[in-house]
Parts: sequence; structure tokens; C-alpha cells
Amino acid sequence: MTTPINPFANNGPDPDLLPEGLADRLPPRAAEAMRVTRAMVDVLSAHGYDPVQPPLVEFERSLASRMAGVRKNRMVRFTDPVSLRTLSVRADMTVQVGRIIATGLGSAPRPLRLSYAGQVLRIKGDGLAPEREQLQIGAEIIGADNAAAAAETVLLAIETLRAAGATGISVDFTLPDLVDTLVEKAHPLPPEAVIAVRRELDAKDAGGLSAAGGEAFLPLLYATGPFDAAIARLEEFDRAISDGGALGTRISGLREIAAQVGNAARITLDPSERHGFEYQSWFGFTIYADGVRGELGRGGTYRVTGEARPGEAGHDEAATGFSLYPDPLIDANPLEGADRVLFLPLGYDREKAETLRAEGWRTRAALSESDDAGALACTHVLGAKGPEAI
Amino acid sequence: MTTPINPFANNGPDPDLLPEGLADRLPPRAAEAMRVTRAMVDVLSAHGYDPVQPPLVEFERSLASRMAGVRKNRMVRFTDPVSLRTLSVRADMTVQVGRIIATGLGSAPRPLRLSYAGQVLRIKGDGLAPEREQLQIGAEIIGADNAAAAAETVLLAIETLRAAGATGISVDFTLPDLVDTLVEKAHPLPPEAVIAVRRELDAKDAGGLSAAGGEAFLPLLYATGPFDAAIARLEEFDRAISDGGALGTRISGLREIAAQVGNAARITLDPSERHGFEYQSWFGFTIYADGVRGELGRGGTYRVTGEARPGEAGHDEAATGFSLYPDPLIDANPLEGADRVLFLPLGYDREKAETLRAEGWRTRAALSESDDAGALACTHVLGAKGPEAI
Repeated sequence: MTTPINPFANNGPDPDLLPEGLADRLPPRAAEAMRVTRAMVDVLSAHGYDPVQPPLVEFERSLASRMAGVRKNRMVRFTDPVSLRTLSVRADMTVQVGRIIATGLGSAPRPLRLSYAGQVLRIKGDGLAPEREQLQIGAEIIGADNAAAAAETVLLAIETLRAAGATGISVDFTLPDLVDTLVEKAHPLPPEAVIAVRRELDAKDAGGLSAAGGEAFLPLLYATGPFDAAIARLEEFDRAISDGGALGTRISGLREIAAQVGNAARITLDPSERHGFEYQSWFGFTIYADGVRGELGRGGTYRVTGEARPGEAGHDEAATGFSLYPDPLIDANPLEGADRVLFLPLGYDREKAETLRAEGWRTRAALSESDDAGALACTHVLGAKGPEAI
Repeated sequence: MTTPINPFANNGPDPDLLPEGLADRLPPRAAEAMRVTRAMVDVLSAHGYDPVQPPLVEFERSLASRMAGVRKNRMVRFTDPVSLRTLSVRADMTVQVGRIIATGLGSAPRPLRLSYAGQVLRIKGDGLAPEREQLQIGAEIIGADNAAAAAETVLLAIETLRAAGATGISVDFTLPDLVDTLVEKAHPLPPEAVIAVRRELDAKDAGGLSAAGGEAFLPLLYATGPFDAAIARLEEFDRAISDGGALGTRISGLREIAAQVGNAARITLDPSERHGFEYQSWFGFTIYADGVRGELGRGGTYRVTGEARPGEAGHDEAATGFSLYPDPLIDANPLEGADRVLFLPLGYDREKAETLRAEGWRTRAALSESDDAGALACTHVLGAKGPEAI
């Protein structure tokens, strides 16, 4: 079988034609994007997650209020000519799933497993990531945030990325409410000091941490790295500061998740990392793969909240989930050899062509005498006896 | 096999939660939407159409200028903080495909077959169709607008809608540039009269047509209805007004398309219908199906144009294509019985579960002792010997 010439030469974005951070996917990359999206969604479905499809646009208030850490100024906003209220294009679908959980699916049995896949938009990119549009694919377990739920989501995120072609996956665990827990259960600090300690731990600044009154937390800076060694150091720290009473359930939870993940991914621990986990509760994770710069997604445990509405109580419920942003994988995946495509000459047998398509052939039909099988990237021609390789 | 209770009770939109014309798709309807989208996209791929994925947002100028008939005031617009130019969320993907054809794929061999599928947004609905977000799926042949290309697109639109579950499909043909052709070749009229004649023909107003100086075109109002009878009347009219010289190729083109479509759909003709076909050239069609109010899509022949840019000539090329809006089908399709879902009790055999998923089972795993197979809409439980029906 000959490999046809790729007829799509000029795939680069043109700044005069498209705004910065927005791009077309042309053939064959767009087909790869569809293949990857399907493969990922199929993994979620196989694990019992049911898809939801929220709209592209909502009331800004709804998108901005439901979870902490969602910044209004990232969203494309406009005034609704119908309601005269401010609408926003979604920048994050998890907020929409949160709304659905608290309202339309508020009374569905728990644990409830939901999935979603769609485009999200932010008004501008940042230095590291100029993209303004991204494909977001995710899964949420609503009504559970125990170690079993956390392990299921970590394993599912790994399997979903593998289905998309990721290799060399590594997962970095964190304990987003670590400082709050230690302050509450083992080492009281005034509120200003808590904020400073969190900041210096995030910055991994030992001097700053001591200056902020967080000397007791210094060992946390060294409880990082490959999971087994780091969790042992964290346990040692917990024994010293609280006789094991403060972090005991969290440490056993992390060990259970790591045991379930087993060899499916390399696991590291960075217990005091909070950046980007502001709305998570006890567990958070970030996921990476070989050949892709930056993270491919993150997840963890959190609480879904909703304001009280007339006739309804407010909503507050445990949940566990993750979001993946597979565009870098899609754009890095090696493209498979071109499809077999069958050229159908003028006057071809339509029933025969239909049968061949049902068998998995792609066909391209001649529309005039001048149509050329080779130029149309066909690999075969329909002859009297069937497909013939060109 | 028992049919589990649908756990998703409250699927209706709530006007306090979502803006008018925007809605969530919840389970199981969202899964149906994904199934339908895949089936439609697969038909296009099987016929040799390669997908393109343009971005959700572009420069407004690019979206508004490339084809006639695209109205800026339908689009969600905002100022780009990067370029300070006006951006719009796409209201129609064919315009984006037009841009790609004229630029990035300007030198790919013709005829070039492209497909697309994605969400489009308009700033508000209208009386008949309150929806502001729609799924648009389409296909374009670039570099051909002959009867063979037109027949291929009509047949493909039919097959694509069938794959989405449509039944009782009917197609209404029109000749969008009919008046211009008659005025040019057979019956000259002053420019103002041409506009008035077009308007009265669109309104199907015999009195107005006569008053506008279009008496000669009165027979067109009666060349409508089931294809065979209507095309015969159109031919009679053409013989009378031009000795068959004005519409001859158009009539033979329509006959060729109708012959190719054969019994795949009921065909009607309304040769002077122009509404919504302002940017089409010689052929246009609208497609309907049983049980769905209003049209499911439209298509026809047209010209892709692009302004000259530095170092490049302007673009002007024949094309044929269609756009389908399958949301009404998705929402009307009967839902198949619920999937078989296998409950995995605590401590289940993970390898066994993986094997069963590879065989097509969906699974849902217990996360605590209290998780209940029935409440989680599972139909089977994994027992010692394999799945057991509940």
C-alpha cells in the first residue's frame, strides 16, 4: 500500500486571520482530535460515568459563584439582550456540573458519577499557555470523597489519558487543607500567621516560613518527592508535631490511594502544594505525561455548594473528580498512516460502494472526468473485482 | 433483565438557573446526543470528508465578511483584550470553513471534501426557535458545484440524518438565482423591478407580482409541489419564456439530482424560494423529517470568496455543501432501554472488571458498604462466576 502525499500543507496559524491563542485544526490533526476525544469519553462511560452537556453560556453569577477559585475576569462576558443580565462563556465546566448536581440532579441517588467533554474559553491566555480555547474532559463522583473515591478518580484519570495516547504518566499528590488541619489539631496560629505560613509553604521558602512563625512546619518542605520516601517523612513530622493525631487519616488515605494506583503511574508527594487547589478539600492531584510540557489535568476531593433558593435548602455535598485538558496530547501524538481511501470512478456501482463503506472503507467519488484518485489522497480504486491498490 | 429506574427525574430547564434558550442535557439524553453526533460524523468520514475544527471565536470581520447573508447582529461580540479588535463567537461554522478553504487549504487538491461538527451560538433566539445554542454538523465539497456534487451532498445529507434516527425524510429543491437568470437570459427588467419581483415571488403573492411588473413570472408560482409534476410545469414555463434557453441546464441538473436521490427521500420543488438561500448559486435544498417541526438543515451550491491579501490574489471558487442542526432529532429520538451496568462490590476483582469492560460492559464500583446496586441503576452484580442479573 502506498502512502499518499498529505495534501494539507499549510497548517500553521496566521495572526492576521485568527486571534492570538486561537487556531484551526486541519486534516489530519482534526481527525486525531476526534479519535482522542472519543477514546477518552469511552473510558469514562465504561466506568459507569454518565455524560452531561451543559450549555456554552450561562449567567455569569452562576458560573462565578458556585465554587471558590473561579475568576470572573478570565471569562468572556456580555449582556444578555433577553434578560439584561450578564452572561459568560464557560471557562470551566466543573462549575456547570456543580450547578447540575445541586439542582437538576440534586435528588439522584449517590454516589452519582457524571462526565463531561466540551470546549472552554478564557478571554486571554497567559505567558506559559497562550491558548484561549481548550477541550476539557472530566469526571465527578458526587456524594463520596473517601480514599476509595479518590483512588478511583486517580486511576480513571490515568486510564483516560492512556486511551488518549499518553505514556510515562506521573501523578503528584497533595493535601490542600494541610495547614488548616495542622493549625486546628496540633499547632494553633493566629489567622494572619496562617495566611503567611500557607504562602511561604507554597513558595517553598524556608527562611520566610520561619519568619512567618511557621518553624514547626519546616519539615514539610522536605516531605516531598517520590511517594514512599516522602510519605514516611510526612508521617515522621506528624508523629513529632501531633503524636500522629493530626494527619493520621490523611496519611492512611494517601497510602491507600497510592496502593491502588500501584504501578499504573509514578507517584510523587508535595503535601503543602496549594496553588490551584484552593477549592479542594483533603486530597488533590496533578497529572503529567512524557513529551507534554506542563500538566495535563488535576483533580481531588471538594465540596459542591449551592445557595439556598426559595423553597430549597442550600446545597453542601462531598465530591471527588478531575479535569483533563488533552489538547497538548492531541497535538503531540504521532499521526497514524493515512487511512485507506477508495476512489470511486464516474459511474461506479453505488450498492457495491455502500457495502464497502459498511465494511469500514472510506470512499471518495469522482464528480467529473478530471478528478484524479492520487491527487485526492486515495490509496485504492474501485475496479471490476473490488478495491485495487494504486 | 430488569429495567432500572431512571434516577434522573428533573430534567426541565429552570429559568432562574439558565438563560432563556439555553439548556442542559442530562443523562440519558446527553448520551443520546453523543451517540447521534458520532453516527453523523462517521457517515461523513465514510464518504471521504475530512474533519476540520475551527475555533469557537474569531475576529468578527472574518466571520461577518466572508459570505453574504451572515448577520453580525446575531453574534455574541466582545472586545479582544489582546488585539483590541472585536471578536465574535461563531454563529455559523460554514463561514469558518470558507476561511480555511480560502487560506490554509487554498492549495489543497480539488475537489476537496471537508466536514465539521460543533456548537454555534446566537445572541438571541427568535419566535419560532428560542434556542441560542445549536449543534451544527456539515459537509462541503470545494471546487465543484455541478449536478454530481449537488446529488452527492443531497444523498449525504439524507444518509447522515438517517444515521441520526430521522425517518420520513423529504427534501425541497429550489433555484436560488432563478430570477437573475431569467432577467439576464430571457426577460430583462430594470434593477428596482428585479428586487420587487424577487420579493413578491418569495411572498408567493400573485397580485403583488403582477403589480411589480412580473406578470411573465406568474407561472413560477404554480411550478411547485411534488417534483415530477412541478419540474414539468417549470419546463413548460421555460419553453414559453425563452424557448428553453434560460433554464435548460438548471432543469436538467435538477432532474439529474432527483434521479440520483431516487426513493431515498420524497422530493418537492419550489423554484422561486429564496429565503435563507441568499448566498447560494444555482441550486439549494431544505431537508425535513417526520416528527420534527421545521427544517433540519439546508444546503446547495455557492461560491467561496476571500478578499485579496498582501501577496495573494482574492479567492473565488465554486462549492457545494450542507449544514444540519440535529438537536430536535436528538431530543425527539426514543431513548433505547438503559444500558446494562455491572455493579462491582467492595473488594471486586479488578482484572476481571477490566476484562468485562473490554467486552463492552459498563461497570460502577462500590465505594462504601452502603452503596446499593439498584439505586445506582445497575442491572447486574459481579458475582463469583461473573455478571449476575439483579
